[in-house]
Amino acid sequence: MLIVQKFGGTSVGDLERIQNVANRVSQTLKQGHQVVVVVSAMSGETNKLLSFAEHYTQTPERSEVDMLLSSGERVTAALLSIALNAMGHPAASMSGRRAGIVTDSVHTKARIESIDPQPMRDELAHGKVIVIAGFQGVSDKGQVTTLGRGGSDLSAVAIAGALEADLCEIYTDVDGIYTTDPRIEPKARKMEKISYDEMLELASLGAKVLQNRSVELAKKLNVNLVTRSSFTNAEGTLITKEENIMEQPLVSGIALDKNQARVSLGGVIDRPGIASDIFTRLADNSVNIDMIVQTLGHDGKTNMDFTVPKTELLDAQKIVDQFVAEGEISECSYDENICKVSIVGVGMKSHTGVAAKAFQTMALENINIMMISTSEIKISMIVAEKYAELSVRSLHSAYSLDR
Amino acid sequence: MLIVQKFGGTSVGDLERIQNVANRVSQTLKQGHQVVVVVSAMSGETNKLLSFAEHYTQTPERSEVDMLLSSGERVTAALLSIALNAMGHPAASMSGRRAGIVTDSVHTKARIESIDPQPMRDELAHGKVIVIAGFQGVSDKGQVTTLGRGGSDLSAVAIAGALEADLCEIYTDVDGIYTTDPRIEPKARKMEKISYDEMLELASLGAKVLQNRSVELAKKLNVNLVTRSSFTNAEGTLITKEENIMEQPLVSGIALDKNQARVSLGGVIDRPGIASDIFTRLADNSVNIDMIVQTLGHDGKTNMDFTVPKTELLDAQKIVDQFVAEGEISECSYDENICKVSIVGVGMKSHTGVAAKAFQTMALENINIMMISTSEIKISMIVAEKYAELSVRSLHSAYSLDR
Repeated sequence: MLIVQKFGGTSVGDLERIQNVANRVSQTLKQGHQVVVVVSAMSGETNKLLSFAEHYTQTPERSEVDMLLSSGERVTAALLSIALNAMGHPAASMSGRRAGIVTDSVHTKARIESIDPQPMRDELAHGKVIVIAGFQGVSDKGQVTTLGRGGSDLSAVAIAGALEADLCEIYTDVDGIYTTDPRIEPKARKMEKISYDEMLELASLGAKVLQNRSVELAKKLNVNLVTRSSFTNAEGTLITKEENIMEQPLVSGIALDKNQARVSLGGVIDRPGIASDIFTRLADNSVNIDMIVQTLGHDGKTNMDFTVPKTELLDAQKIVDQFVAEGEISECSYDENICKVSIVGVGMKSHTGVAAKAFQTMALENINIMMISTSEIKISMIVAEKYAELSVRSLHSAYSLDR
Repeated sequence: MLIVQKFGGTSVGDLERIQNVANRVSQTLKQGHQVVVVVSAMSGETNKLLSFAEHYTQTPERSEVDMLLSSGERVTAALLSIALNAMGHPAASMSGRRAGIVTDSVHTKARIESIDPQPMRDELAHGKVIVIAGFQGVSDKGQVTTLGRGGSDLSAVAIAGALEADLCEIYTDVDGIYTTDPRIEPKARKMEKISYDEMLELASLGAKVLQNRSVELAKKLNVNLVTRSSFTNAEGTLITKEENIMEQPLVSGIALDKNQARVSLGGVIDRPGIASDIFTRLADNSVNIDMIVQTLGHDGKTNMDFTVPKTELLDAQKIVDQFVAEGEISECSYDENICKVSIVGVGMKSHTGVAAKAFQTMALENINIMMISTSEIKISMIVAEKYAELSVRSLHSAYSLDR
């Protein structure tokens, strides 16, 4: 197999840890696989370099920031390559540029536009392990660029796609994706497999592991993604396309989001375009809307509830007050003490009764549901924040996720 | 004028010093000049990275060492560019590759093969200061290379040559080239101008400032080189072609080398090829020969004296012993307590009596001269080491270098 292995900042945090990474790559090689490694900068290095730049200005040129930061991954790549060679594995490091990674010119958050896999193929054909500096590429103007947060994961996924690798392993300090947050429900189990779409909906469960941007790219490029720990030998979680998962569980996991606040609007003048007006003005003021629920109106008025990040609640209130002043909304209320509990599973597409079971479970615990929103593979409920953990544990058990 | 300014590791040793460099570049810009800056890694950085590599092996791959080390100059270049931009001077950093510096593939001591000045010209045409990562280039295989010791100076000289710059200023912690070592002769004066050839012969006086490799390249490319201090505003020393120096002094400087040891061979069988045999075998054993003096033989035998670095004296003795065993040499003696005093000046080409004055000076001080060797612009004498300082001071005064 051809395997892309990506190691993040903590996994290469010091010289000993880089040696551990070399050992792990060596194991994979000894199993007869070809390996392409993608590395981040040693943890702390990127922040150190940024603080250097901030010695001169709070607004350094983005292209210069990229020149500065891209050095961190180069160092790790060279060191890992040296360690591998010292163990007898011929290895060659490559910058993003040498690995053929071409991006747009949006410095500090560039998007990968194309990858020319030939230079990597050439080195692989010479029997070498390739060690690539993640997080970086080169613009068509020839300037080094960086890919923003989670950039090394993106590098790894894009490289796996370009090389049509069999597997793209993302190593972190977490050993996979769990059915729910184990700090809330100790019975949470590590999933063996999960589909791209489920992973995207369960973002909060994988927040420490994978950004949605990487999962989306993996889905687009059809890359089999595995998240696993660089500190244990435990199998990780495979994120793959739905067809590759033989037995679809009804529900895969329960996610919890305590970061939202609820805005409730009552007596909203029910004219065509009112929703568009409200949400356009909110978007123009950079307020991110998560859930939106509208119920049927009467007497020419309607009710509308939505959630926003707690940090953006004040901004949202200002906008809503404008509509109140304009007479388009008669009542409004705000609630910060809420949370969002979500049940995710591709299985619910073809099964009925999944939602009913969720509502029964909440009723049995006497938890009042304030808002409901459903999609093809997700049911989200807004409940009082005090019920957050109880909701998660009850649902986890109701869908037998602990077995 | 178009000026290339090169700042070494101590000049960019911390964030404050990089700000000082930015201030100096700013001054030059405000005088109406165009500036291309070449920077080294922050002092200590290269050694730190090398020690990282040595954590894994004493013999890291040279190409990986280049990948590793080249990051240091990139960081400095980006930081200086950020500092300049923050001061309102549009600046752009460039790696060696982007600056068009192509080298051979001899990693860790590559030689510059060509420079495409177009990318630099383009940025200059846009009114920008260019900040180039010194010490590095790219091989025709697309791999980053480094130029070895003194590499950033070479980068600066080569860039000045390619851009046909008016001046190439090398900033260090020393403010120029002195007529002799000021620690030996406090009356030593800083020279205003000196020719390339004199500088090459006075290498020991400039040892802390410039390597011969850079002076040779400057001579070849006809680059006006200035060495000056980054910590003072004092004018430095201009190293230029002979024609640019209006009044040629008879003697420019006095150099001292305490690193040599003397080997004296007596009763050497005077057959054709004997010198070749001896010095070839020494070279094959990596013994570096400096001075060689042979005097006319008689009775089919001759005498031959030469000097070698003190650290290579034992190796030289072993080779000589072989010739003694083979019956080709009958006597040999070794002396570590010697030194070499050299008088350098292009003026001596067209003036007689320079050598005579040197011998008179030594005679007046009762210093015995053991060996003499002369070239067009240099007279070297081997004397007992205890007379080293006395010789230098006497000669410095005899040629009125203190005035």
